[in-house]
Amino acid sequence: MRAAQAAPRAKHQDPADAAAGDDTEIIALDLPPAPLTPDMQAYFGKCEEKLGFVPNVLKAYSFDMPKLGAFVAMYNDLMLAPSGLTKLEREMIAVAVSSVNRCYYCLVAHGAAVRALSGDPVLGELMVMNFRAARLEPRQRAMLAFAAKLTAEPWAVEDADRQALRDAGFSARDIWDIAAVAGFFNMSNRVASATDMRPNSVYHGQAR
Amino acid sequence: MRAAQAAPRAKHQDPADAAAGDDTEIIALDLPPAPLTPDMQAYFGKCEEKLGFVPNVLKAYSFDMPKLGAFVAMYNDLMLAPSGLTKLEREMIAVAVSSVNRCYYCLVAHGAAVRALSGDPVLGELMVMNFRAARLEPRQRAMLAFAAKLTAEPWAVEDADRQALRDAGFSARDIWDIAAVAGFFNMSNRVASATDMRPNSVYHGQAR
Amino acid sequence: MRAAQAAPRAKHQDPADAAAGDDTEIIALDLPPAPLTPDMQAYFGKCEEKLGFVPNVLKAYSFDMPKLGAFVAMYNDLMLAPSGLTKLEREMIAVAVSSVNRCYYCLVAHGAAVRALSGDPVLGELMVMNFRAARLEPRQRAMLAFAAKLTAEPWAVEDADRQALRDAGFSARDIWDIAAVAGFFNMSNRVASATDMRPNSVYHGQAR
Amino acid sequence: MRAAQAAPRAKHQDPADAAAGDDTEIIALDLPPAPLTPDMQAYFGKCEEKLGFVPNVLKAYSFDMPKLGAFVAMYNDLMLAPSGLTKLEREMIAVAVSSVNRCYYCLVAHGAAVRALSGDPVLGELMVMNFRAARLEPRQRAMLAFAAKLTAEPWAVEDADRQALRDAGFSARDIWDIAAVAGFFNMSNRVASATDMRPNSVYHGQAR
Amino acid sequence: MRAAQAAPRAKHQDPADAAAGDDTEIIALDLPPAPLTPDMQAYFGKCEEKLGFVPNVLKAYSFDMPKLGAFVAMYNDLMLAPSGLTKLEREMIAVAVSSVNRCYYCLVAHGAAVRALSGDPVLGELMVMNFRAARLEPRQRAMLAFAAKLTAEPWAVEDADRQALRDAGFSARDIWDIAAVAGFFNMSNRVASATDMRPNSVYHGQAR
Amino acid sequence: MRAAQAAPRAKHQDPADAAAGDDTEIIALDLPPAPLTPDMQAYFGKCEEKLGFVPNVLKAYSFDMPKLGAFVAMYNDLMLAPSGLTKLEREMIAVAVSSVNRCYYCLVAHGAAVRALSGDPVLGELMVMNFRAARLEPRQRAMLAFAAKLTAEPWAVEDADRQALRDAGFSARDIWDIAAVAGFFNMSNRVASATDMRPNSVYHGQAR
Repeated sequence: MRAAQAAPRAKHQDPADAAAGDDTEIIALDLPPAPLTPDMQAYFGKCEEKLGFVPNVLKAYSFDMPKLGAFVAMYNDLMLAPSGLTKLEREMIAVAVSSVNRCYYCLVAHGAAVRALSGDPVLGELMVMNFRAARLEPRQRAMLAFAAKLTAEPWAVEDADRQALRDAGFSARDIWDIAAVAGFFNMSNRVASATDMRPNSVYHGQAR
Repeated sequence: MRAAQAAPRAKHQDPADAAAGDDTEIIALDLPPAPLTPDMQAYFGKCEEKLGFVPNVLKAYSFDMPKLGAFVAMYNDLMLAPSGLTKLEREMIAVAVSSVNRCYYCLVAHGAAVRALSGDPVLGELMVMNFRAARLEPRQRAMLAFAAKLTAEPWAVEDADRQALRDAGFSARDIWDIAAVAGFFNMSNRVASATDMRPNSVYHGQAR
Repeated sequence: MRAAQAAPRAKHQDPADAAAGDDTEIIALDLPPAPLTPDMQAYFGKCEEKLGFVPNVLKAYSFDMPKLGAFVAMYNDLMLAPSGLTKLEREMIAVAVSSVNRCYYCLVAHGAAVRALSGDPVLGELMVMNFRAARLEPRQRAMLAFAAKLTAEPWAVEDADRQALRDAGFSARDIWDIAAVAGFFNMSNRVASATDMRPNSVYHGQAR
Repeated sequence: MRAAQAAPRAKHQDPADAAAGDDTEIIALDLPPAPLTPDMQAYFGKCEEKLGFVPNVLKAYSFDMPKLGAFVAMYNDLMLAPSGLTKLEREMIAVAVSSVNRCYYCLVAHGAAVRALSGDPVLGELMVMNFRAARLEPRQRAMLAFAAKLTAEPWAVEDADRQALRDAGFSARDIWDIAAVAGFFNMSNRVASATDMRPNSVYHGQAR
Repeated sequence: MRAAQAAPRAKHQDPADAAAGDDTEIIALDLPPAPLTPDMQAYFGKCEEKLGFVPNVLKAYSFDMPKLGAFVAMYNDLMLAPSGLTKLEREMIAVAVSSVNRCYYCLVAHGAAVRALSGDPVLGELMVMNFRAARLEPRQRAMLAFAAKLTAEPWAVEDADRQALRDAGFSARDIWDIAAVAGFFNMSNRVASATDMRPNSVYHGQAR
Repeated sequence: MRAAQAAPRAKHQDPADAAAGDDTEIIALDLPPAPLTPDMQAYFGKCEEKLGFVPNVLKAYSFDMPKLGAFVAMYNDLMLAPSGLTKLEREMIAVAVSSVNRCYYCLVAHGAAVRALSGDPVLGELMVMNFRAARLEPRQRAMLAFAAKLTAEPWAVEDADRQALRDAGFSARDIWDIAAVAGFFNMSNRVASATDMRPNSVYHGQAR
C-alpha cells in the first residue's frame, strides 16, 4: 500500500549527517572515557572479534571502570550463564520489556539479538512491536505476560501471577530469572533513555 | 552485546510454520472473499505490478466490495493526494500513531514505507520504536507530538496544541491533514488489532 | 438536590453569543468550502429534507470534495448498510467509543441518534456517561465492552476478547462490523477534537 | 447524520421495564429505610415542594439517619452557603469532576442543575462530555482545570497549580471552596458507583 | 544495606526549619480561624485530652464553623459509629485509599491510626506502601481490593465487584460502609492535597 | 483524629505470626542458599558488624554467588562511591523511585536509610509517601522530578528534561548518576515485587 520507489534522501539523511539517528560521536552524555582496565581491554577486544564492534552501551559506561565492570558482570551473568530460560527467551524478555518502555537503544540492539538467535526476523519484529501479536507457545506467552506486567505495574504483581508461571512449567529459579532479566532491562532502558544513548547502526541490518 | 551466531531455529520457526507470524492462510477473520469489482480488480493488478503483491489489508476487506472501495478511496486520498505534508511525513505520522497503539500490522507495513520513502532505514526504526528519540527538525517534531497526543488523549487537545502547529509553520489545511492521517490510523490500527490482521511478510526485508 | 429556579443567564450565554458552544460560524478550522459536486449537492439536499439540516461534520469536510465523498461513503456503509448489528447497536458503539475519547461533537450528534433510534432518552444518556451503568442484555454488554477495550488499549485485544464476542453470539462478520464501527469513531473523534468541530445545536433537544 | 425517525422501542425499553435505567425500586443497595427524623421529614417535604421529588441520593442514605444528616449538612453547606464561587460554578465543578469519574448518578442530577442554573442546556452537555470543549472565560477554565487535575492525579497538585488559581483571581478561600466541592464529588461519585445508585428519571428532561 | 550511622543533619533540617515538613505555622491555606462554637470548643478539648493535640485537619477547617461541624459529624459517624467493619478495618481502608492517591496528610495521620489500633507497626507500613504486599485474610484483601479499584477507576466498578464482597462475607450494609469510607478519603485526600495540608508531626513517632 | 489507645492485637498479629509481614522464613522464592564465597562471607560479616544484620535482599540473592556478587558490586558502587550526589540524595532517589513503583521491600529498607542519613524521620516519610509534598531546595526537587518521570514514563524523557537538571546545577556526570540510581531501583523494585521479597523487620523502627 506504500509507494515502492524511494524518495530522494530527505535533508536529514545527507551524507553529512547520515548517522543522525545513531553513531554520532556523542553516544550518551559525552563523558570523557577512562583508561580501560586490562580486563575490559580484553573484553572489548573479544567484542570486536566476535561481533565486529564494541556495543555503544559499553562505550557509554567507559567513563568509569568500576561502573563498566559491574554492568558487564551483571549483564553477562544474566544473559549468558546457565538458566532454565534459553538465551533466546532471555532476549525475548529483554525486547518485550524494552517495548513497554519504548527504549530505542535496547529495542535496536536486542531486537537484532532475537532475530539472530532465533533465525526468525519476524519474531524480532513481533517482540519490538507487540509481543501479544506473536503466535507463541503458552510457556513463552506466560513468560512475556509476566515480564510485561512486572514492567508496567510492578505493584500489582501478586501470588496469582507467580502461580501462572508455575502452571506454565516454570520453577522457582526460573521465576527469579524472568524477574531478574525483566528487572535488568527496566534499569537499562532508563539509563539509555535518560542519557540519550545511541545504538551502533550496524544492528539495524543484522539478521534481517 | 548479543551473541553473533544464530542459534538453531527454535521450534516455532520450523520450515513447516516459518510464516507463523504472517502470511498464514487466515489474514484476519477468515471471511470469504467476494468477487472483485472491475475497479478493484484493476487496483489489485496495479498493486501486483507496482509492489509485487496485494497488501493483506486489501484482502482482509475483500469480503465486501463497498467496504473495500470506501477504504481504498479514503486511504489513497489521505496518503497520496496533494497536501502540505509530504508523503514521507504522512507515513511518519502513520507509524508514530501505530506505535502509540502498538499495531503490528501497521507498524510492519508503514515502517517499510518510511524506510523506502526516506531512503533511511534508521528513520523507519525510530518511528516504530519511539519518535521522540529521532533527531528531527522542529516542524516534524511538532507534527508527531500533535499526532501522538491526539492518539493517546484526544480529549486533551486544545487551542494551545493547534497553536503549536501554527507556530511550527503549518496552515489550517495542514492541521486538518495531520488530524485526518492520525485519525485514519487510529481507525486502521483498531480494525487490524481487533481482527488479528497479519501483514505480508515481504515488508520485513524491504528497504533495510 | 439542585435549586429548581434558573439563575439569570451567565455572561457567556448572552443573546449576543448564545451559541458560544455550537453553531458558531467557524465549525472547525474555517477552511473555505469548495463547490459541492452534484452528488454531494444531492446528498446535502437529502439531509435538509430528512433531518432538517446539514450535519456540521459534512460542512467541515466540504473544503475538499474527494475527502467529503470518501467520508460519506464510508460512514453510510458502516452505519446504514445491512449488518448483523442493528442501526441502534451501531450508534451505541459510536457513543460508547466517543465517551471513552470524550469527543464533544460525536457525543452530541450520536447521543441524539441513540435517543431517537431507541425511543429511550435514558439509553442515550447512559451511552454518553458510562455504558457500564446501563442494564443491557449480555450481547450488547459484550459488544460495548469489546469496543471500549479496543478504544482504550487496542494493543491488548487478544483471542480471548474475540472469543467473548463469539460466546455472546456474534459471527466473524459481526466482529468485523463491531471493530469497523469502533475504529471509525476512533478516527472521527480525533478529527473532531483536533479541529475543534462544533455540532449543530439542534441535536441537543432531539428525542429527549 | 442520524436517521431521524425513531425505530420501534428496543426490547429493553418495553413498557414493562421502561425504567430499566433509573427509577427502579432498588435505588442503591436496597437497604431498608429508617424512620425519618423530624428534621429530615421537613427536609424531604421541602424537596417535594421545591423540586417536586426527593432526590434518590437522599433515599439511598435514608437507611441511617446520622449518615443522612451528615450528608445533607455537608452538601447544603458546600453547594448553597455563601462563597466566592457562584452556585452555577459549584455545579460546573460537580459535573466536570463527575465526568472524569464517569459517575452516572451525579452526571444526570448535576448536569440538570447546570442546565437549570445557567439557562443554557448546551453548557450542561459540555460539562458532562468534556469541559475543555466549552468556550469559557479564563477564570472558569482555570477552576475546572484545577478540579479535573485534583480528581485525576491529586498527588501531582503543587504550588504552581494553586498559583494558577490565584492568577485567575481566586482568593485562598475560593481555592478551599474549589477543593472542597471537587473533593465532595469525588466522594459522592464513588458512593454512587459502588452502590449502583440510580438517579430520578425526571432529571433527564429538565431544562433542555 | 544502608549506612547505619546518621549523617550530620542536612541543611534543610537545621533547627531553624526542623519542621519544614510539618507543623509549620501555615497548616493549609492560612485562612484566619473563626471563633469556635461551644460544641467545637468542647470537641477540641476532648482531642487535647485524648490525643494530646488537635489534629491539623480540624484547625484547617476552623475558618468556618459550619464546614468544621459538617466534617466532624461525617468523620465521626463513618469511623466510629457501629458498623460491620471494625475500626481498624475502616482505618485500613483509609490508608489504602490514601496510598492510591499518595496523600501525605492522610497517610501520616491514618497510618499512625492503623499502627495504634492493630498494635502492629508493620501493618501500618504495609497499608501506606502497598496493601497487596500484606498477608491478609481473604475478607480484608477483598475489602481493600474493592476500595482501591473504587479509588483508581470508579467508573469500572460493576456488579461482579459487589459480588466479590458478598462472596467474602460482606452484607449490603457492609458494602455501603466500605464505599462510604473509601469515598470519604477520596474527598479528604483531595482537600488535603489541594490545600497543602500538613499533618501534626507527633503522628510520625506514634505506635512504632 | 485517631483513637490513641491501641486495640488488642488483631488475630493476624498473634505472637505466633507476629512477623506475618516480614522476617518469615521464606524471604523471597525459597531458593536453597549456595555456600558463600570467602568474599561474600566477609561482606556478610561486615553487614552483621555494621548494621547488626544481613539485609534480606542479600540472603535472597544467596542461591547463586555470581548473581550475589554482581548485585553487591553494582549496589555498592552506585550508592557509596564518590559522586556529585550525596549518599542521602542517592537514597532519596531510591525511595522516590520505589514509591512510584510501590515496592514494599525497598520502601522499608531505603526509607530507613533516608531517615538515618538525614537525621530527619519526616523526610523519610515524605519520600515514601509523596516527594512532591516535601519542601525541598530546587536542586533536589529537580533531581526527584527527573527520577520520577524516568520511572513512570521513560519514553517521554527528552532533552528538555536533561536541560532542567543542568539548569539546577547538575553536571553531565551527575545526570548519569541520577539515571543510574533511578534505573537500579527500577530493577530492584521489580525483582523484589516479582519474588515477594520481605524486608528485615528491624528497619521499621530505625531512626524514627
